[in-house]
Amino acid sequence: MTSPQNASDLPESGPEGARRRTGGRSARIRAQVAEAVGTLLVEAGYDALTVDAVAERAGVHRTTVYRRWRDVGGLLADVLDAAADDGWRPADTGSLEGDLTALNQEVYEALRPGGTDTTDGSGSGSGSGSGGNLTTALIAASFRSAQAAGALTRFWEGRYARSAPVADRAVDRGELQPGLDARALLVTATAPLYQELLLLRSAPDPELPRRAARAACAAARAGVFH
Amino acid sequence: MTSPQNASDLPESGPEGARRRTGGRSARIRAQVAEAVGTLLVEAGYDALTVDAVAERAGVHRTTVYRRWRDVGGLLADVLDAAADDGWRPADTGSLEGDLTALNQEVYEALRPGGTDTTDGSGSGSGSGSGGNLTTALIAASFRSAQAAGALTRFWEGRYARSAPVADRAVDRGELQPGLDARALLVTATAPLYQELLLLRSAPDPELPRRAARAACAAARAGVFH
Repeated sequence: MTSPQNASDLPESGPEGARRRTGGRSARIRAQVAEAVGTLLVEAGYDALTVDAVAERAGVHRTTVYRRWRDVGGLLADVLDAAADDGWRPADTGSLEGDLTALNQEVYEALRPGGTDTTDGSGSGSGSGSGGNLTTALIAASFRSAQAAGALTRFWEGRYARSAPVADRAVDRGELQPGLDARALLVTATAPLYQELLLLRSAPDPELPRRAARAACAAARAGVFH
Repeated sequence: MTSPQNASDLPESGPEGARRRTGGRSARIRAQVAEAVGTLLVEAGYDALTVDAVAERAGVHRTTVYRRWRDVGGLLADVLDAAADDGWRPADTGSLEGDLTALNQEVYEALRPGGTDTTDGSGSGSGSGSGGNLTTALIAASFRSAQAAGALTRFWEGRYARSAPVADRAVDRGELQPGLDARALLVTATAPLYQELLLLRSAPDPELPRRAARAACAAARAGVFH
């Protein structure tokens, strides 16, 4: 369960990229624009995000940006859709607790202030207590743009769906009974990280990823998600 | 664990109110201003929230608002601090699962679109998928204002602290072993509601409050919070 932290490292194999792969120019522009969106968002927040500013930062003609992305909502949605469209798979550690802890560790790194961040690290946030990382900035933007909100939901639901094998493997190993709701298990495992780091803005606790994983395991073993 | 949904129903017994209770005029102004902040926030979002707009809506002289609250951050922080400063206590249902379900039910009502809302219900949100209720609007505002973010953290931490008796009672009844981290239990119980309704913007599932409570109970019984 990574968060959308890799906006500047966009795949060129998405539908758009595949269609226009010939020269790679279109994919390159998409990556440049996505990186500009991420950098501006982290450095100065949603209010600084205009099509013109993105075009200038990306070194792409503004007409190109308007034509292809139309507005800020379109830009944010594309960054999130592109981030979702990667090769991410959950780690296979050999145990349910290990797999959920690995997922949570990725969420933790994406959410903690100064955590994994594909910008150059100079972003100082915009005084909103956002911690200055891209994941938090994108989540904050989802409260400003319905298009970004929809894309963020697609991103997360895609991550939860791709993480379903974590539950399947636990069933195969005999750790869990068949027939459980994998999504409910995964939401339960990851939710405390968003609650602590994003909403409560708590000081990062390195024990949190494993504790939240253990809590979800215990609930799953008790049959709560069946 | 209620959410800050009662901004228009401010207590007059806060430090400010107590100090100036004599005529009640100061407390009345505070309540009028808080109601105006909530209504504007739900109806039109953070961008519509200016000291002048709040003063006009509240029918209070703008100089009074500037002098007492200074800016939008001060207004938001006061709404949240006033909401925190009520007589709220967690329900005592006789079981850990019952108590946590009751807490979660309050969070659920506060977060679900069209849920408990002290405005007149005419608010339509600002196109950000916020669902148009005050709790969501205040959380969204916390990504815009460091003062609001700090006040929201204080509000929630106050709620978690006041909910600690839920864990104590479970220990007294012999449901749980002594020595557990009550806050970790409470965060685990409530987090899936924020994750689903606020962040994932899922369709409200009436089973969610109880399922999240049962998950946290199972984890507590397994010793995860010890």
